[in-house]
Amino acid sequence: MNRIEEFRERRQRHNERILEIDHLGIKRFFRLDNAAYEPGALDSKTKEMLGLVASTVLRCNDCIDYHLDQCVEVGLTDDELYDALNVALVVGGSIVIPHLRHAVESIDLIRAGADGDA
Amino acid sequence: MNRIEEFRERRQRHNERILEIDHLGIKRFFRLDNAAYEPGALDSKTKEMLGLVASTVLRCNDCIDYHLDQCVEVGLTDDELYDALNVALVVGGSIVIPHLRHAVESIDLIRAGADGDA
Amino acid sequence: MNRIEEFRERRQRHNERILEIDHLGIKRFFRLDNAAYEPGALDSKTKEMLGLVASTVLRCNDCIDYHLDQCVEVGLTDDELYDALNVALVVGGSIVIPHLRHAVESIDLIRAGADGDA
Amino acid sequence: MNRIEEFRERRQRHNERILEIDHLGIKRFFRLDNAAYEPGALDSKTKEMLGLVASTVLRCNDCIDYHLDQCVEVGLTDDELYDALNVALVVGGSIVIPHLRHAVESIDLIRAGADGDA
Amino acid sequence: MNRIEEFRERRQRHNERILEIDHLGIKRFFRLDNAAYEPGALDSKTKEMLGLVASTVLRCNDCIDYHLDQCVEVGLTDDELYDALNVALVVGGSIVIPHLRHAVESIDLIRAGADGDA
Amino acid sequence: MNRIEEFRERRQRHNERILEIDHLGIKRFFRLDNAAYEPGALDSKTKEMLGLVASTVLRCNDCIDYHLDQCVEVGLTDDELYDALNVALVVGGSIVIPHLRHAVESIDLIRAGADGDA
Repeated sequence: MNRIEEFRERRQRHNERILEIDHLGIKRFFRLDNAAYEPGALDSKTKEMLGLVASTVLRCNDCIDYHLDQCVEVGLTDDELYDALNVALVVGGSIVIPHLRHAVESIDLIRAGADGDA
Repeated sequence: MNRIEEFRERRQRHNERILEIDHLGIKRFFRLDNAAYEPGALDSKTKEMLGLVASTVLRCNDCIDYHLDQCVEVGLTDDELYDALNVALVVGGSIVIPHLRHAVESIDLIRAGADGDA
Repeated sequence: MNRIEEFRERRQRHNERILEIDHLGIKRFFRLDNAAYEPGALDSKTKEMLGLVASTVLRCNDCIDYHLDQCVEVGLTDDELYDALNVALVVGGSIVIPHLRHAVESIDLIRAGADGDA
Repeated sequence: MNRIEEFRERRQRHNERILEIDHLGIKRFFRLDNAAYEPGALDSKTKEMLGLVASTVLRCNDCIDYHLDQCVEVGLTDDELYDALNVALVVGGSIVIPHLRHAVESIDLIRAGADGDA
Repeated sequence: MNRIEEFRERRQRHNERILEIDHLGIKRFFRLDNAAYEPGALDSKTKEMLGLVASTVLRCNDCIDYHLDQCVEVGLTDDELYDALNVALVVGGSIVIPHLRHAVESIDLIRAGADGDA
Repeated sequence: MNRIEEFRERRQRHNERILEIDHLGIKRFFRLDNAAYEPGALDSKTKEMLGLVASTVLRCNDCIDYHLDQCVEVGLTDDELYDALNVALVVGGSIVIPHLRHAVESIDLIRAGADGDA
């Protein structure tokens, strides 16, 4: 398993454990989180990019990888993702650079994995 | 002058003073910052929303007001802005709420000012 | 009106405006936020202190004032609040000091106001 | 060694190296840090939960693990810890979720290790 | 009173109130904070600039003003301060710009006040 | 390869990939970032320490390691680096401690590597 595949497996396993502990507030938060990216006044492409940029300026690699998976799924191109990451870089500064490096590698891994599935 | 008008006046006055001190690195950063929102692979509407959400999760009222001004200028609707702010709220949590309150008031003030100009 | 009274008035007015815009995700978040402090495995005193310390290390004065209002309401003493704020200071560092100064003044204003109500 | 045991070993080894470099300010900070969690106006259970929630909203896994170790030691139950983590989740937003996943796994590992010691 | 003079008065008044509440941990933290900027392996000029840049990337205007007061006191020039602020801008990104604007205005006010004292 | 050597290799490989994607804004940001540490009103030693402290209070291990490499290169002593890290610890609080532990280990690894090169 590469880094993205490990992330997906770990994320799913941990999310299942969290549902198992059955805390009402936490379960509601998870539903609210999913609902925020469903199409509404804004479409899914835009919302996933908003999630990606928010995750990048707040510097959370797991959140970046999750949103990049979704961004690729809804059909965003590499150039669109780089443009979004550039906004995150300018807003968040050089402290964001390690997460930019992580994100660009993740995009490459996700694209390679999607090809491999075909 | 209302809060938004005061912000615009103060921002412009301070930016002029910063150009006056004539620091090469700072001047270059300001140009890079402007360039990040020019249309490219993503259009201006999307980029301004990315700037808005990044500013909101990082909890900077001046940055929120600046991007809201631009968001209104490029033609985003209230419902689109509320949807973007909702993503920021879910990603950033209840600590973002005071800035959500600020943002909603700013949208109202900017719309009222735009009407007043007509 | 003193600073705390102005905060309460502004907060209520802005929250009413936010309910008015009637965004489903935002309304659900507000309900989830309220529910998090209702007694459960932990009592309200503990939960309000958790909210206070989280707000202090994240350095949000409006959030600090809101939780201090609740802390006083549920019967926490000044010494308990100072002990909680000390944890926030040690975890968050000297960058927290301006918010510690704000919090101590807010406690004094809230106590004075509560006396004035009697 | 599982993840928690590795964390404990690494933490102790690094803390010993830091004491060895013998910087007066750093040594004083470490003492101040320990003192903040000693019982005073608030008991140790409350203070450790404050430390846990502060660490979670500031998104530091090592700090979360350290405070979870202490929380278990002073006798907090899983339900109390989940309730504290839920406050952190609501205050800090979905960006906290990867740290919530980490924390829940750490609780399981710490409980399993405590059983294993018996 | 201008903005800097108001800050100094408010800061002193609030610090006196904090000493009055007489919390041992908080008092020790304040001493530790002062000690960190006393000359040691690094001189005061360097340490004050470190405090300034840390305050700027963490985006705390009160902390920026405090350290700028100290920076001027120990004899740093405007060009040195602008160079330090430029590092903070590049590391912290455009979200730092409102604090850069604040800092440049504060430098001007502090210099004007120092001239006025002569 | 030890941890520092792996960081250097990974950083270089990822930076090359980022140059390859050839995004004008990102490339300009990288140049601006490099330029910020070139000697000007402040010398390289001071600027690298500013970068180190900014990276430490913002809690980015990759950024810490990068600046420590540069700090050693420009000739800063261990005692100077510890003094800078102490300022970061006091400003940023106990949440910085895991990064202080990381930094002290990195200094040891960098010094050992520099000896090994001789």
